[in-house]
Amino acid sequence: MSTRRTFIAAAAGAAAVSTIGVAAPVNTYPKLVHHVFFWLKNPASKEDLASLLKGLATLKQIETVRGAHFGVPASTEKRDVVDNSWSASEILFFDDTAGQKAYQDHPIHKKFVENCSHLWDRVVVYDAMSA
Amino acid sequence: MSTRRTFIAAAAGAAAVSTIGVAAPVNTYPKLVHHVFFWLKNPASKEDLASLLKGLATLKQIETVRGAHFGVPASTEKRDVVDNSWSASEILFFDDTAGQKAYQDHPIHKKFVENCSHLWDRVVVYDAMSA
Repeated sequence: MSTRRTFIAAAAGAAAVSTIGVAAPVNTYPKLVHHVFFWLKNPASKEDLASLLKGLATLKQIETVRGAHFGVPASTEKRDVVDNSWSASEILFFDDTAGQKAYQDHPIHKKFVENCSHLWDRVVVYDAMSA
Repeated sequence: MSTRRTFIAAAAGAAAVSTIGVAAPVNTYPKLVHHVFFWLKNPASKEDLASLLKGLATLKQIETVRGAHFGVPASTEKRDVVDNSWSASEILFFDDTAGQKAYQDHPIHKKFVENCSHLWDRVVVYDAMSA
């Protein structure tokens, strides 16, 4: 098997073992990024943060979600332009706006909002399409 | 060669041919996400947006950048929580805060700021570490 064919076969294998979609090599992430930042009502509560993160993790099960990253503020340098007042971050990748809409209306997403919305007092969403 | 060994060899090959780092399968994105949102001084200027996006594209050359996504507001549903007042978005993935700091201090990043900062009047940065 040539090196190229070996790589293609392996890439197909890697995609097959992923639970929520194909592997996303650098520079070819799915086109639509759904960024969400949450400010907890009780930002000092580790329990509330854990509950929110547990809820966020369920969103990866939604079929149109192509990639996910959930975070907390990183200990990068403090600068005027850096907002680190939030409690949790969410990135979900979708192929297109239809995929994002299907997620928005999905029972798993609705259940997440129902179970977790009492935890936060502010949410900001930025939806970006590849430029 | 066993299937497993073939995959490992192919994965190493994929990393070698990538210009800016290893492939990032779903669920195993690099840990640190640097989100940046830009508000142009002249949001109606297509030329200014094009200049900013051209400048952003140069950032992928920085060695510690493991993945990148540059966008413009997506045409998703208008909701109270969605901010679509910005002009351009940037996601850069890093392995850790050291990688992000190396980027921050890199000549290519400094040149981007020097060449493009006259284009924007507001920038917001969110640095997130995997939770």
